[in-house]
Amino acid sequence: MITRINHIAIVVADLDEAIETYRNKIGLTLAKRLTMPEQEVEIAFLPAGESMIELIQPITEDSGVAKYLAKRGEGLHHICLEVDDVERTLEEMAERSLQLINEEPIRAAEGWGFFVHPKAAHGVLIEFLQPFDED
Amino acid sequence: MITRINHIAIVVADLDEAIETYRNKIGLTLAKRLTMPEQEVEIAFLPAGESMIELIQPITEDSGVAKYLAKRGEGLHHICLEVDDVERTLEEMAERSLQLINEEPIRAAEGWGFFVHPKAAHGVLIEFLQPFDED
Repeated sequence: MITRINHIAIVVADLDEAIETYRNKIGLTLAKRLTMPEQEVEIAFLPAGESMIELIQPITEDSGVAKYLAKRGEGLHHICLEVDDVERTLEEMAERSLQLINEEPIRAAEGWGFFVHPKAAHGVLIEFLQPFDED
Repeated sequence: MITRINHIAIVVADLDEAIETYRNKIGLTLAKRLTMPEQEVEIAFLPAGESMIELIQPITEDSGVAKYLAKRGEGLHHICLEVDDVERTLEEMAERSLQLINEEPIRAAEGWGFFVHPKAAHGVLIEFLQPFDED
């Protein structure tokens, strides 16, 4: 079951500049900033209600995000729908023959997730995510 | 003050097909479908938590959305941040020298809003919206 939009991801060339814009001009607040070396990105989360705006800057030139930035420029990258059971959601999507990028859940910054191919969702890269339990 | 993500807008070529995908494959529900003749679009709203996914199909060939679809294909179009006072938000953005598309609030499907130019927000078209009062 989809419970909310967890985040909307925006690819940027310079994370410092983007944080400056989204905080001081757009009017959001910065909640967290972290480096994900295995995904070759630095990211910042800015909450908006129950969701977050995620700014992503590639830190290498070879990642999918780096190639996206080189090809399409800065802008909206994907939306992330939060679910209560990511394993079951993935099974359901596979049963519905939805074209998936991941065959099993992968570890993301905030939980376990998988991506649906944009070809299967009218040009939109969609992530499904089950957040880590908070203890 | 930004209170939540009101909606994420996705431009599609065929609204019926897109509703079919987002409802029966992605797992959302259809809340509302309407035609906005003055904006030359048909739109559908599918709730996700406190936000909505908005699917937009142009119904003419001349609108901004039609040109966007012709040039970039289907995909993410804009994000809409809900505010409690759209007039004041617009004034603040102007004071901060943020490049705006509208100089005063315009009437949208769900309230009064204005758009910030993608050049001012790292490639993202951002709408600010104050919903109509519900009586």
